[in-house]
Amino acid sequence: MTERFSFSLLATDGRARRGEIAMPRGIVRTPAFMPVGTAGTVKAMYLDQVRDLGADIILGNVYHLMLRPGAERVARLGGLHDFARWPHPILTDSGGFQVMSLAELRKLDETGVTFRSHVDGSVHSLTPERSIEIQGLLDSDIQMQLDECIRLPAERAEIERAMELSLRWAERCRVAFGDQPGKAMFGIVQGGDLADLRQRSAERLAAMDLKGYAVGGLAVGEPQEVMLAILDETLPVLPQEKPRYLMGVGTPDDIIKSVARGIDMFDCVMPTRAGRHGLAYTRFGKINLKNARHADDPRPLDETSDCPAARDYSRAYLHHLVKTNESLGGMLLTWNNLAYYQQLMAGIRAAIEAKRYDAFCAEVTEAWAKGDMPALAG
Amino acid sequence: MTERFSFSLLATDGRARRGEIAMPRGIVRTPAFMPVGTAGTVKAMYLDQVRDLGADIILGNVYHLMLRPGAERVARLGGLHDFARWPHPILTDSGGFQVMSLAELRKLDETGVTFRSHVDGSVHSLTPERSIEIQGLLDSDIQMQLDECIRLPAERAEIERAMELSLRWAERCRVAFGDQPGKAMFGIVQGGDLADLRQRSAERLAAMDLKGYAVGGLAVGEPQEVMLAILDETLPVLPQEKPRYLMGVGTPDDIIKSVARGIDMFDCVMPTRAGRHGLAYTRFGKINLKNARHADDPRPLDETSDCPAARDYSRAYLHHLVKTNESLGGMLLTWNNLAYYQQLMAGIRAAIEAKRYDAFCAEVTEAWAKGDMPALAG
Repeated sequence: MTERFSFSLLATDGRARRGEIAMPRGIVRTPAFMPVGTAGTVKAMYLDQVRDLGADIILGNVYHLMLRPGAERVARLGGLHDFARWPHPILTDSGGFQVMSLAELRKLDETGVTFRSHVDGSVHSLTPERSIEIQGLLDSDIQMQLDECIRLPAERAEIERAMELSLRWAERCRVAFGDQPGKAMFGIVQGGDLADLRQRSAERLAAMDLKGYAVGGLAVGEPQEVMLAILDETLPVLPQEKPRYLMGVGTPDDIIKSVARGIDMFDCVMPTRAGRHGLAYTRFGKINLKNARHADDPRPLDETSDCPAARDYSRAYLHHLVKTNESLGGMLLTWNNLAYYQQLMAGIRAAIEAKRYDAFCAEVTEAWAKGDMPALAG
Repeated sequence: MTERFSFSLLATDGRARRGEIAMPRGIVRTPAFMPVGTAGTVKAMYLDQVRDLGADIILGNVYHLMLRPGAERVARLGGLHDFARWPHPILTDSGGFQVMSLAELRKLDETGVTFRSHVDGSVHSLTPERSIEIQGLLDSDIQMQLDECIRLPAERAEIERAMELSLRWAERCRVAFGDQPGKAMFGIVQGGDLADLRQRSAERLAAMDLKGYAVGGLAVGEPQEVMLAILDETLPVLPQEKPRYLMGVGTPDDIIKSVARGIDMFDCVMPTRAGRHGLAYTRFGKINLKNARHADDPRPLDETSDCPAARDYSRAYLHHLVKTNESLGGMLLTWNNLAYYQQLMAGIRAAIEAKRYDAFCAEVTEAWAKGDMPALAG
């Protein structure tokens, strides 16, 4: 096992990249999808299952973990890997995004951000240095800089102010992180929907020679074309030899199109959240198990899947579990969805290696467009 | 595999019995605890896990299943075993108890009971014949007679009326069930807290020569001594060669004391419900994971357990999951609790075989009384 964090490009097909991030806790095959383990648990899943599906890395949220159970407590208990029983790599976000979206009474200035917990109203502050300290206490393998992620649409001046602040915070995080050969701290490109600001952000971060780069502030409601255009404008500015992480993205379609533009890493709550709301991601597209058409359907979601949740349980049973709010419904659909996402990533990686990524995308897109199998005749 | 439902007594120790119920779908080792699978799912568990813990049989609730997904639908889908993916024996209740406790606008007469669904207000009726029909549609292996279970305390006249009605309904269920060699229909002893009524009920049911007998109307809030006294008065009247099922019971202490009196089968929501409310059943007694004493405790619930939920996860992590309402908390504690109940039943069975049942009860009771391991020094 390697002692140093490193990234290798194993193959490319157009701008799509097949790579490997090596860390002391394991190898992450890229393009990679990171299941979201918000508070030290991927909701409705045993982490052993998540591993068995092929996940090399999961994500933890600093905002949630600093409030409960607390970063110092996790450190006393041996770090997040021991705490949650996930001995493989973990990426943590900086906490900034969720401070903006969940916390109350935020006050942001050059120093950092002060906020009230949405749980108990207690007051906390997060500076670039404290965010890195918390991520260190969690013993996170890939740590993210604190940034300011603003809502779009916004005025250019406001986008630029937040982008420049994020750059200054990136530098403070770089210093706070220091020299940790087995771990990485990633910078985050900001700049809203403005190409020149995105490029300036990417150039200045590239100059810091960080171990990886994320694109932030996307997948916050803008049309997919806007997101893809920003990737087209931004990624060429980032160094080829570093991993690129598109934060909070996305649908299967977002993922294949972003990989085509050179993204290596993704995280998103969609497969887990949708699973708890009766929605299944499949090779036939998204299926709503609440729909009455499934009530008498003995067929599984996808008999060709390796995942028991997709292969072994009837749609009628899944429909029943969803309609009666039984926890097994969320358990099975989350399992199915994470299995589908990991299968998609495995397919993406194989297609890049085989230099047939465009054909692969056309195939999966066609299958999604064709839609679900016809309902059984009544 | 046997073609006929049968019960064999393999060993006794005092009044405690070690037996085996043989059915086409499998053997049930008694004394047995049946996890409650209300609506075709044991909440927060995969049924494969339930099986792996040593459960030979689970329980389904007619009231829930007739409302959703509907008995005729389950029949079209191949029966409850296929629907829920549990190919082993299933016992179903008659629906009567939950009509009394959950439904609205009940109207009960000699014919049966009419009620409004607590789900959508729709009107349904349940007669002895319809209850058996529904249990047949579900393809239940052990079916229960429809009975009237009244609340205590009650006047003697009221207890007697309900007991006599239950006897007439037992006879109607016996006729409706007919001759099904591979399955069984059990009668239910009623009679409140009145010994002579309980004995009359038991005698009249015994005369019907049913394949098994339940004691109903207990564990509805009365002190444990009352329940045990009724068992002492009732069980000698029931035929030795038939299985005896104490419905809705109970705590581990209720179970060991009822086995000592000759009970063979139990069901109870306690281990599953408690698991979703942060409570763990262990050999140290019941542990409340919400308690702050666990917040920094790296020790598992019970390092000697075979169950991963008990052995591998820290109390600190379980505390965190419970406090943050993460579904994995309920999943792990339900798993732990059902594992503990099945371990207890295995211990009970081994102790009866070894003719050391009293000593076994003294040992487990002493361990419960001693309580949990001391908290870690702060």
